Amino acid sequence: MADYCSPSSVDESTSSSSDKQCQSLDTRVFSKNACCGTTTRLTNQNGVVQPLLTDLYQITMAYAYWKNGMCSNYAVFDLFFRKNPFHGEYTVFAGLDECLKFLQSFNYSHSDIEYLKSALPPTVEHDFFTYLHQLSPKDVTVYAIPEGSVVFPKIPLLRVEGPLPVVQLLETTFLTLVNYASLVATNAARFRIAAGQHIKLLEYGLRRAQGPDGGLSASKYAYMGGFDGTSNVLAGKLFNIPVKGTHAHAFVMSFSSTEDCNLKTLTHRTTGEVKDLMAICQKWLSELSGFLHILSDEASSGELAAFVSYAAAFPDSFIALIDTYDVIKSGLLNFCAVALALDELGYRALGIRIDSGDLAYLSIIAKETFNKIAQRYEYPWFSSLAVVASNDINEETILSLNEQGHKIDCFGIGTHLVTCQKQPALGCVYKLVQVNKRPCIKLSLDVEKVTIPGKKNAFRLYGQDGRALIDLLQKVEEPAPDPGKRVLCRHPFQESKRAYVLPSKVEPLYKIYWDKGKICEPLPTLQEVREHVRQSLFHLRQDIKRSLNPTPYKVSVSDDLYHFMHNLWLENAPIGELS
Amino acid sequence: MADYCSPSSVDESTSSSSDKQCQSLDTRVFSKNACCGTTTRLTNQNGVVQPLLTDLYQITMAYAYWKNGMCSNYAVFDLFFRKNPFHGEYTVFAGLDECLKFLQSFNYSHSDIEYLKSALPPTVEHDFFTYLHQLSPKDVTVYAIPEGSVVFPKIPLLRVEGPLPVVQLLETTFLTLVNYASLVATNAARFRIAAGQHIKLLEYGLRRAQGPDGGLSASKYAYMGGFDGTSNVLAGKLFNIPVKGTHAHAFVMSFSSTEDCNLKTLTHRTTGEVKDLMAICQKWLSELSGFLHILSDEASSGELAAFVSYAAAFPDSFIALIDTYDVIKSGLLNFCAVALALDELGYRALGIRIDSGDLAYLSIIAKETFNKIAQRYEYPWFSSLAVVASNDINEETILSLNEQGHKIDCFGIGTHLVTCQKQPALGCVYKLVQVNKRPCIKLSLDVEKVTIPGKKNAFRLYGQDGRALIDLLQKVEEPAPDPGKRVLCRHPFQESKRAYVLPSKVEPLYKIYWDKGKICEPLPTLQEVREHVRQSLFHLRQDIKRSLNPTPYKVSVSDDLYHFMHNLWLENAPIGELS
Repeated sequence: MADYCSPSSVDESTSSSSDKQCQSLDTRVFSKNACCGTTTRLTNQNGVVQPLLTDLYQITMAYAYWKNGMCSNYAVFDLFFRKNPFHGEYTVFAGLDECLKFLQSFNYSHSDIEYLKSALPPTVEHDFFTYLHQLSPKDVTVYAIPEGSVVFPKIPLLRVEGPLPVVQLLETTFLTLVNYASLVATNAARFRIAAGQHIKLLEYGLRRAQGPDGGLSASKYAYMGGFDGTSNVLAGKLFNIPVKGTHAHAFVMSFSSTEDCNLKTLTHRTTGEVKDLMAICQKWLSELSGFLHILSDEASSGELAAFVSYAAAFPDSFIALIDTYDVIKSGLLNFCAVALALDELGYRALGIRIDSGDLAYLSIIAKETFNKIAQRYEYPWFSSLAVVASNDINEETILSLNEQGHKIDCFGIGTHLVTCQKQPALGCVYKLVQVNKRPCIKLSLDVEKVTIPGKKNAFRLYGQDGRALIDLLQKVEEPAPDPGKRVLCRHPFQESKRAYVLPSKVEPLYKIYWDKGKICEPLPTLQEVREHVRQSLFHLRQDIKRSLNPTPYKVSVSDDLYHFMHNLWLENAPIGELS
Repeated sequence: MADYCSPSSVDESTSSSSDKQCQSLDTRVFSKNACCGTTTRLTNQNGVVQPLLTDLYQITMAYAYWKNGMCSNYAVFDLFFRKNPFHGEYTVFAGLDECLKFLQSFNYSHSDIEYLKSALPPTVEHDFFTYLHQLSPKDVTVYAIPEGSVVFPKIPLLRVEGPLPVVQLLETTFLTLVNYASLVATNAARFRIAAGQHIKLLEYGLRRAQGPDGGLSASKYAYMGGFDGTSNVLAGKLFNIPVKGTHAHAFVMSFSSTEDCNLKTLTHRTTGEVKDLMAICQKWLSELSGFLHILSDEASSGELAAFVSYAAAFPDSFIALIDTYDVIKSGLLNFCAVALALDELGYRALGIRIDSGDLAYLSIIAKETFNKIAQRYEYPWFSSLAVVASNDINEETILSLNEQGHKIDCFGIGTHLVTCQKQPALGCVYKLVQVNKRPCIKLSLDVEKVTIPGKKNAFRLYGQDGRALIDLLQKVEEPAPDPGKRVLCRHPFQESKRAYVLPSKVEPLYKIYWDKGKICEPLPTLQEVREHVRQSLFHLRQDIKRSLNPTPYKVSVSDDLYHFMHNLWLENAPIGELS
């Protein structure tokens, strides 16, 4: 498949083999960004990810715990969400790598401590700051679902255990790192599903992103979720993502006539002869104008000058933005003339980009024109010139373009992808489920907000067709379900909703990622996580993935956990009195 | 006015005097974050803000300009938006300071150049990289409207002039820095207008923000737009914003009974006697239970233990989150008991926070209870205990709570503020309006998308009541309008919409902020910009600011500019042919 979007750093066919090397290079580059206070943080993480990137109440609670002698209470927190985003029935989990890197570099610097002394009331005891300064996540254990997995409501993505104040202090930063990452990865996966596997998807959202890092994170997680590249150069440099781009309307507008084209010649690729590119383009323009019945006067000569200049600079990767003046009367004609001229000099143009108007109609016209020229001049390669479309595209636009039989080969997607316009926040929460050995339940008038207490394990049960059937939460003490053995799965809240499931395969969802102060599971590269997203989505039934009225995926608890939870609920819920 | 939200770094009454000192301290701290490649960037800016934080096409266009000998072409770009966000009729301009700091540190490092060599096709000439490496914005001039000003569609916020490739290379980063900043500042200003001047507004959005820097930027620009503080500790440290916070549900849940409270005593503030705080609380609990007709059995003893522990840690700034179990039957009762006990020991509690349920109803009940106790025990201070409300609050929630006569003193606002859920992106664009002396016009089938060509000045004309009447764009050659002299203002696109305006004051909107490689206008502190937002909004008529069907503010062009623009339009628009 042709590489539709001209200059790019990464040849995708070779990228996976060089990933690890490139990533470590990028890591070095990024780590220089990431120093703060007096401590240099040697992680490839944005420098603002540091222990003070948190809510003040985490620190005030830590002080109250400390003062109350609760520092060695052992707490278990679950990080989970209650509802899939975008009216969908699945979510792609992302951000784990960042959480682990945050743990790796977690410490309060001297300047942090000085600031906190000024931020907290003067009555806060000095020894607390000594405690904070020496605090580290060495006694914390993090269980998590692998990054890039498809995940569902109520199943904890992370289970974080350790000393109460320490695990409490991780809450806000973990949520910040998981919420947006998972939201964008999910959004990207939805665009991928809407567009199909054979369309190229490029992320163009930096200028509309929520802050500079919003843009950088979006590029990374859009790629993870299934995009093919980004326009964001820094994301390319830091994460080894293919970067793509052509030119803007301003480039075309900066030329007013063919006189503005100072570089009219191009060297023939094989013969080395210097040829007058502009003259050859003009010859083709007049030829095509007759053949396509378009007045050559209507075509902008400034646009032609811009295309010739751009083609002379990038003869091997020429893509033209053709909607500055008029797609059909000007841009398409000028492009075809330049593409045919390039061919005479031994070069192959790549295609066009359309950034306004009726994208289905214009792409069909463009492809028809390409086909006509291919036939007329016996240039079969002309039929495979690519059509790139951009302009405020969202998931629904793609679905509608599909229905109209568009001929677009590549979508450039910005605002809707990176800001997740349809739902700009994922609501992950971080809830206390156990302290010392005591399970905790958070009651709520809204049943769906009641938390599932205690320390739990999670399993994904697969059917005979290899597709995921149901996720099952159990108490950690319970043995894992066995493949081929019937297991009773219950709805966590609705008593009568139960099913026996006969799994052909049982996948334990958690691995230990952080223990004894270290990352204890090899972390995959971004490219490997991207592949895992693809695989994980592949094992999900089609009806769960569809855009309109998708079937909910089932999330269940074991019979044991069901009774445990409901007994605790009754114990804790006050009996009201009506009078 | 009481400081409703306990521990805070900044006493607001003194903050303005110490701003400058603190800001320079913060700048030092932040600048350590901001190094990249081999160059240390000495700005208080997120390290990811660097020349590669851009779209690849800016670089490919720069190469085509360079190769075509257009590097000294003098270009003028306008940065503007076409539509106010949130169905409103005004926008608060923010992000200028960041753009200027970006210019200050603008240069391509060796590692940037190395990366670009790998990202661009091998045919790109080596001398271009030498050009890029030495490129600086020394010949760029930036005219801008002061940060924090109320601004309107079509009026350029920035006019950026200089060598074509250089000003082109600034596009994406400038848009990234202005779009989200202005969006959040505007959103915050809208919340402020909805809540009124006497309610405290706190930003609680970090965990739901779009990436770590999304959270940090949100805290900064929410404060600029009119919020009083943030929960984000790093934002407090870096930008000298008051930080606020109490405790979470997890804190309450980590106590199961009064036995879990290890720190039951508190020293009397003035006498120094050590007293049994828990016992005094229990005495008050039983007393209040009778007086308020609430069964003391229904009140959670775990919650009481948590409140006592928190009060013992922060006796001078006690705020309790009262909705973990039941606001009326448990939380409110426990809080009042602890507040009265604290009073016996010489301390004043601050108030409560409610994070769920019917906020209007619960705040009214809480205030009634406070008033009853104030009367019964002759403690007038009890009436002024504060009610803080949070839980997915947006502008409409506040307007509806206003109608219900809520008794809330302070709102904590997260997701809707920081992700700007109602409209998560502002659509600022950066358009070429002149090259060398030639004006450029971008045509479009959508009239509203046609750009206003040429180099322009902007003025705000005020009426006799001191309110802003209309904004006026003129060609730079035209003399500024005179106060007291009639000026013809025309709608830029609709021929018949014209008005004579008699301004009592004329405000030129632009200042030169960047010239000859330097910031050439003293930059205000964040606190000063915040005050400018307030002033600028004050001069806007009420009907333009209202939430429902606001009146559009008028944006006009001079008669000269009108004719200039429409002539150019006709010259450039092809005459179609129907057959």
